[in-house]
Amino acid sequence: MHLTYLLPAPMHATALGETEMRRRAALLSDWAGSDTRITVTAVDRGPASVESAYEEYLAIPAMGEALRDAERAGTDATVLGCFGDPGLDGLRELAGRPVVGPAGAAMALACTLGHSFSVVTVSSGVRPLLRRLAWETGVLPALCEVRSVELSVLAINQDHDAAYAALRAECEQALSTTDADTLVLGCMSMGFLGAAEQLTAELGVPVLNPIRAAVHHAQTLHRMGLTPSRRAFPAPPALVADADAELMHHAQNRLEVTG
Amino acid sequence: MHLTYLLPAPMHATALGETEMRRRAALLSDWAGSDTRITVTAVDRGPASVESAYEEYLAIPAMGEALRDAERAGTDATVLGCFGDPGLDGLRELAGRPVVGPAGAAMALACTLGHSFSVVTVSSGVRPLLRRLAWETGVLPALCEVRSVELSVLAINQDHDAAYAALRAECEQALSTTDADTLVLGCMSMGFLGAAEQLTAELGVPVLNPIRAAVHHAQTLHRMGLTPSRRAFPAPPALVADADAELMHHAQNRLEVTG
Amino acid sequence: MHLTYLLPAPMHATALGETEMRRRAALLSDWAGSDTRITVTAVDRGPASVESAYEEYLAIPAMGEALRDAERAGTDATVLGCFGDPGLDGLRELAGRPVVGPAGAAMALACTLGHSFSVVTVSSGVRPLLRRLAWETGVLPALCEVRSVELSVLAINQDHDAAYAALRAECEQALSTTDADTLVLGCMSMGFLGAAEQLTAELGVPVLNPIRAAVHHAQTLHRMGLTPSRRAFPAPPALVADADAELMHHAQNRLEVTG
Amino acid sequence: MHLTYLLPAPMHATALGETEMRRRAALLSDWAGSDTRITVTAVDRGPASVESAYEEYLAIPAMGEALRDAERAGTDATVLGCFGDPGLDGLRELAGRPVVGPAGAAMALACTLGHSFSVVTVSSGVRPLLRRLAWETGVLPALCEVRSVELSVLAINQDHDAAYAALRAECEQALSTTDADTLVLGCMSMGFLGAAEQLTAELGVPVLNPIRAAVHHAQTLHRMGLTPSRRAFPAPPALVADADAELMHHAQNRLEVTG
Amino acid sequence: MHLTYLLPAPMHATALGETEMRRRAALLSDWAGSDTRITVTAVDRGPASVESAYEEYLAIPAMGEALRDAERAGTDATVLGCFGDPGLDGLRELAGRPVVGPAGAAMALACTLGHSFSVVTVSSGVRPLLRRLAWETGVLPALCEVRSVELSVLAINQDHDAAYAALRAECEQALSTTDADTLVLGCMSMGFLGAAEQLTAELGVPVLNPIRAAVHHAQTLHRMGLTPSRRAFPAPPALVADADAELMHHAQNRLEVTG
Amino acid sequence: MHLTYLLPAPMHATALGETEMRRRAALLSDWAGSDTRITVTAVDRGPASVESAYEEYLAIPAMGEALRDAERAGTDATVLGCFGDPGLDGLRELAGRPVVGPAGAAMALACTLGHSFSVVTVSSGVRPLLRRLAWETGVLPALCEVRSVELSVLAINQDHDAAYAALRAECEQALSTTDADTLVLGCMSMGFLGAAEQLTAELGVPVLNPIRAAVHHAQTLHRMGLTPSRRAFPAPPALVADADAELMHHAQNRLEVTG
Repeated sequence: MHLTYLLPAPMHATALGETEMRRRAALLSDWAGSDTRITVTAVDRGPASVESAYEEYLAIPAMGEALRDAERAGTDATVLGCFGDPGLDGLRELAGRPVVGPAGAAMALACTLGHSFSVVTVSSGVRPLLRRLAWETGVLPALCEVRSVELSVLAINQDHDAAYAALRAECEQALSTTDADTLVLGCMSMGFLGAAEQLTAELGVPVLNPIRAAVHHAQTLHRMGLTPSRRAFPAPPALVADADAELMHHAQNRLEVTG
Repeated sequence: MHLTYLLPAPMHATALGETEMRRRAALLSDWAGSDTRITVTAVDRGPASVESAYEEYLAIPAMGEALRDAERAGTDATVLGCFGDPGLDGLRELAGRPVVGPAGAAMALACTLGHSFSVVTVSSGVRPLLRRLAWETGVLPALCEVRSVELSVLAINQDHDAAYAALRAECEQALSTTDADTLVLGCMSMGFLGAAEQLTAELGVPVLNPIRAAVHHAQTLHRMGLTPSRRAFPAPPALVADADAELMHHAQNRLEVTG
Repeated sequence: MHLTYLLPAPMHATALGETEMRRRAALLSDWAGSDTRITVTAVDRGPASVESAYEEYLAIPAMGEALRDAERAGTDATVLGCFGDPGLDGLRELAGRPVVGPAGAAMALACTLGHSFSVVTVSSGVRPLLRRLAWETGVLPALCEVRSVELSVLAINQDHDAAYAALRAECEQALSTTDADTLVLGCMSMGFLGAAEQLTAELGVPVLNPIRAAVHHAQTLHRMGLTPSRRAFPAPPALVADADAELMHHAQNRLEVTG
Repeated sequence: MHLTYLLPAPMHATALGETEMRRRAALLSDWAGSDTRITVTAVDRGPASVESAYEEYLAIPAMGEALRDAERAGTDATVLGCFGDPGLDGLRELAGRPVVGPAGAAMALACTLGHSFSVVTVSSGVRPLLRRLAWETGVLPALCEVRSVELSVLAINQDHDAAYAALRAECEQALSTTDADTLVLGCMSMGFLGAAEQLTAELGVPVLNPIRAAVHHAQTLHRMGLTPSRRAFPAPPALVADADAELMHHAQNRLEVTG
Repeated sequence: MHLTYLLPAPMHATALGETEMRRRAALLSDWAGSDTRITVTAVDRGPASVESAYEEYLAIPAMGEALRDAERAGTDATVLGCFGDPGLDGLRELAGRPVVGPAGAAMALACTLGHSFSVVTVSSGVRPLLRRLAWETGVLPALCEVRSVELSVLAINQDHDAAYAALRAECEQALSTTDADTLVLGCMSMGFLGAAEQLTAELGVPVLNPIRAAVHHAQTLHRMGLTPSRRAFPAPPALVADADAELMHHAQNRLEVTG
Repeated sequence: MHLTYLLPAPMHATALGETEMRRRAALLSDWAGSDTRITVTAVDRGPASVESAYEEYLAIPAMGEALRDAERAGTDATVLGCFGDPGLDGLRELAGRPVVGPAGAAMALACTLGHSFSVVTVSSGVRPLLRRLAWETGVLPALCEVRSVELSVLAINQDHDAAYAALRAECEQALSTTDADTLVLGCMSMGFLGAAEQLTAELGVPVLNPIRAAVHHAQTLHRMGLTPSRRAFPAPPALVADADAELMHHAQNRLEVTG
């Protein structure tokens, strides 16, 4: 199958650049296995960084365009490259094939591994958002708490070891102060640094990498021949009337790399 | 005080046009009372109509720009002109003064008038969205159900009486089949046609007009000197660093009318 | 409009006396604005102080009589002068016009200002009651916690500064140990001392004064032409049969002052 | 043990009169068994009938006085003679020995007999109240629904068979339209007519008589040496200071009969 | 009535032996009163000890056989001798008379004594199980928390005083850090050592002994003529077809002692 | 990977026999894909059929033995062959590798495809059980309802077309009377007849085959290197002390077939 990983920010125009996109494509390809072809796509415009709900909203229109282009190019499923699952309901309205949000996929998976899970993320500001995503997924009763360390993306990239140590300390707190038995890593950057796998090994409880949860979720849907419910996410009437309608299109200068 | 009513679609460029905007401004002015000055503002671009979650996302960036312009022009509070409360959390991040969503304001008010309320709206597709708004407001336990008739905006405008009759029949069903004791009209167009007031008189239970609920909510916050919690809706860091930052701006051709 | 503030204890017969009633009337008048006439009424009998649920029950019959008298005298709405919303459902059965409980009004308002609110009150014994009021209002999911300091009414009146300091310390704890983003002051006495406004300014989050929330709530209902749902609060059959029925009346010696 | 059954209305002054009080005392005595002495007490004043929340509030002060008198006379426990559990929290503050509300006792018992129970009562107006009692007891998740037929006390007394038939039809509806597996009879009058026992036999599911549930609940607490938690229901400070304090007393003309 | 107390492990084959079974039978007899005859029965096989969910499952088939034998021998009700209520739903399918789980009975009773209760047990591993039992009983909203000390059955038997001290310290923590107003002792061994009664006296809040709660629950059902709902726990079809069917029987070597 | 499908009843000793086991193994193999080796194992003893909770309990000990044998034989994961997820918590205590319950896996997957799902199963008696499984998985808020037709296993096997028609009619009812947007087929027999895939195609909403959901769930866990949380499902102490302990073993006469 062909799976697209859709970045909500123009990473190719940032300091991380194409190099990081290629590195992520390679990791995704390893994780997905040989029967899945990976494309990593970044939107062509948007705020320099997404650090607020408003900036997330600014990103969604370009994500919609990139998603439609990916489907026209034959992708079998799309995974959103942000743990906030930005615009998931709206993007599913546009899509003809599975669109997977990592938060939803990881939290649904966590439900099946124990009695109660906690999410550990890197910014306190997203705690209410992540609780809302748990509610939208329908799993709020299984969510013990959302915890966070205050790590900026910059800090993560400058010192991986310090970032990992902070994250691990927070996970240990989660386990020693509550009955949570499963953890979800609420951060794609740390996910691409292998933090979840290392934490799983060191802490002795499952710590879910949301990227891998989302990729295998997309594979499962593809293999089962399922798409998100059209009854839940009906196509915009303008698209129903004209499948090629451009709801509000822009010229593109988007980057894609392949894993 | 100065209150801005912010339309999420470019109504001035549609068949309803400036005439309807002026009519709405006059009604808002009547409802708000003589100590409140009303401006009705429409965004300058966006999908021709908002009939899906994706189109709602398309509207939010222009709403953010219009909101910032309204605050620069001295508005004391802004009411969103859509019962879906589009982008409310993100818009509050941008704002320095109260931003009010009609669904949240009306549902919070409904909580105080009885034991259980139902929302009656004009499109079945928004039922899950309205349940989510009830959850976000924190009032889901008081929500009995969301009911809908299938009325297009076109149908409402072509035959007000038929639309009212359909709405009233649905309200009667809501009362005869459940213990709901209070109703919320989930539709701004019907709100501007006086449906809520007529239904209140005819059915003998409170039927809330969300427009008026939102206007008085904004007045209450203004008079109490309150704004939405900055802890819940922190300003985007880019705006904190530079208050005049244009996160992603466009040339404007927006219309404002005064009530 | 004419608004009555109904005290559940015979304050005119206590040490605070008429002087405090006049002071409160003046404050209410300032808060309500020039288009609202205020009457402060105290019941004519009842326990010397209300410090338990049983004493609250003892107060309700006299409140019912005072409410009916206020409506006969032409009040447009009545606000209960106690954060416990004593007898609200029963009093609404008697009333023909809005009766507002400050706890319900303030908690509904708090729902609209953030994701999660806490109530900070002055007596630990009322914590279960306030949770019940949140449930009755339908907003329990938005209630983070009810916190309290142990301040007696006497202590508040003897040393306002010490009382304010204790309250502020508790509010700071509420913010530092939970994700609550909005606070509700659960105390009318502190409300009449301006504590909420000072806390809002000093803490940087909205701290709601329940008195003002209730007054503006009553104004909103009056302006929208709404009363609590008769379906939720049906009139006692004996009153339906005879509108002048005295369900169980007593001679009165009640005090009213005007703001 | 000595158990007092406390009627919230002056039944001795109504058409049912002492005869009915004696009949009820005899039934209670049969149900309780030979080791329990029964006293039926009616309050000495109050509304002629209790058909609204306000009238329930009117009854509570006299119930408090009667409860204190019963405890002074040596009762070991008191059962409230009304399925609305009027004033239960306040009365427990006054009491030194168990006070049992039939709704709470019956709903807690129903929880243990299946997965989901429904209450079937005789007046639609009390449905919200009974839901609140389920919440206060903490068993709302087990409550399937509250159903009602419209039977007045007069109608029940005039034609027992018609009343039973209506009740049985409603119970059958409860079982055929939901998954409720246990029923609670929400009516003391029908309870004293043996309806619950007859319905249990005819319908093949447990139909709980709330009177008997409350009596055995009181016996259980007495035998286990338990009283309701003083932490939940602290004594009014005025009573703590002076155990003989009369919070607000009246001359009495109360009737007691013994089973 | 005749009540059987059914031990899920072959206690007669352990160090505690028949002596402890006789001691328990005597205590049960004292608690139940003179009108109830007690039989203590231990299953004839099963894991040496029950310290996991899997071992609990291993115990259930033998419990089913013992239950059927007890009913054939004329027991009027059966109380399960384990706070985990092992196999309660399945055992009720087999039974023709009341089967009572101590956890469900004690938690339902706790609901009626205050606003919120906590369970204090002796092993952290059962906390999720006890939360599930609270959910199955329908009382989860009233459950404040499940707390535990780490006491093995061996430790309890070796040093009662140390075990009691640890338990009391945990109960004090439960009361000082939460609003729980009622406690449930989640341990049958400590129940048979009188810990609940001592804690009730020393802490000033009700601390429920689950054994006595279950015994009186069984008496209540017997006196009211009620059995668990057959609609909730239908008989296995094989038993309906042949009331004497042995679903999967074994030779027995069971011990019974009488209180 | 090597995946074991564990049947809770001795199917090889029933009319369906080895032929059906081979057919199921082949289907599982097709669904799982070429990189997964399938073994179908039936327990060696147990009730002739599992039609009650008690019979489910009778099956669990033999399932535990079969599971341990499968792990000793090198299986990488085990899927339980019953939609009731019998003994899942206990079996996970025994296991060193993933054990997957089809109900939990399918319900978690359904959460991610829309706002609200319903389960459609073939026996009304399991509705409370399936609600409990939804609660244990943590997804109860997303469960709209559990519906059932009354189809015996015999009826399904005698007339597939009639069974499918009944199931489809129930699914159509689920969609026309509620807002459910996703369905879960609550029946393994119908799953092996391809009903879910046909319903998905005919009804236009996702209808999940729980068998395939469970198989892909097991693959996902295997590929991510995850096992259920040992903190949630600790090994029985007797096994920790002696990894080869036979908690309660029996001679075996089990059948395995390979897909």
